[in-house]
Amino acid sequence: MQLEPIGVVHSIFTAQPGTPVQPAFASGEDTGTVEVYEPFEEGLDDLGRFDRIWLICWLDRSGPPRMKVVPYLDTEPRGVFATRAPSRPNPIGLSAVRLLRREGRFLHVAELDLLDNTPLLDIKPYSAHIDVFHVGREGWLGERAQMRVEADDRFSEDS
Amino acid sequence: MQLEPIGVVHSIFTAQPGTPVQPAFASGEDTGTVEVYEPFEEGLDDLGRFDRIWLICWLDRSGPPRMKVVPYLDTEPRGVFATRAPSRPNPIGLSAVRLLRREGRFLHVAELDLLDNTPLLDIKPYSAHIDVFHVGREGWLGERAQMRVEADDRFSEDS
Repeated sequence: MQLEPIGVVHSIFTAQPGTPVQPAFASGEDTGTVEVYEPFEEGLDDLGRFDRIWLICWLDRSGPPRMKVVPYLDTEPRGVFATRAPSRPNPIGLSAVRLLRREGRFLHVAELDLLDNTPLLDIKPYSAHIDVFHVGREGWLGERAQMRVEADDRFSEDS
Repeated sequence: MQLEPIGVVHSIFTAQPGTPVQPAFASGEDTGTVEVYEPFEEGLDDLGRFDRIWLICWLDRSGPPRMKVVPYLDTEPRGVFATRAPSRPNPIGLSAVRLLRREGRFLHVAELDLLDNTPLLDIKPYSAHIDVFHVGREGWLGERAQMRVEADDRFSEDS
């Protein structure tokens, strides 16, 4: 199970503090460019007609994995797999960003929550038929998902 | 970027033909168990109160990557990143399955679209506040997402 980056994210965010913690909490002005490396360019065909795409990234600047974390949206320690915190055994990030347009092997996106130079592992189309579910219970997140919208340094390499 | 499996999926599906292509097309009877290895058990705390969870897996039996694929739901070749097909440069699967209950380091799930013994890389909670977006355009998928619900062998190792 060896990963190969297929591209890299170019973002205005260079450090975790102040970065949106999710695309859902970012603004249309949080824009960036996803550069896909040349061998993979043909795989982007047909993507330009999707409004939203999943970016699956390697969160290379997250700190070492912890089994209990205090997530940005909460004040109590939670099991890391019940959170979207980056300090995970495999630091894989899942971001549904808005696709503005494709230009060759570059994707211009908005509502970005990723740091500059984040390695890109995969892109998938977001589909209401596949990705939208009605959920009754969503644990601690249900009450707190609108509380706070920016990261701090709690999951950075140095903390 | 070296992956470490955190667990393994136990499923009734042992080969791609006949397996649901997405949790959204699976039934409540497509159940299975996610086994999380002991060092990661504490990370499951607080997860039991979520109705749905993302399983991020390594699709170890998908064929070699291709930049153009004919997806299960379509009859024309599409760029692989505009599809959810498994034959990707990094064969990472994204499945929002229904969580029935947690028992220690075992998660009983339904609406499963994964093969037996698939390596598990990560678990994240599904949240309506984070994962649900209104999308206007969803390319070729928009018209076709209700056509067909089972995989065949086009992305298997042998084809």
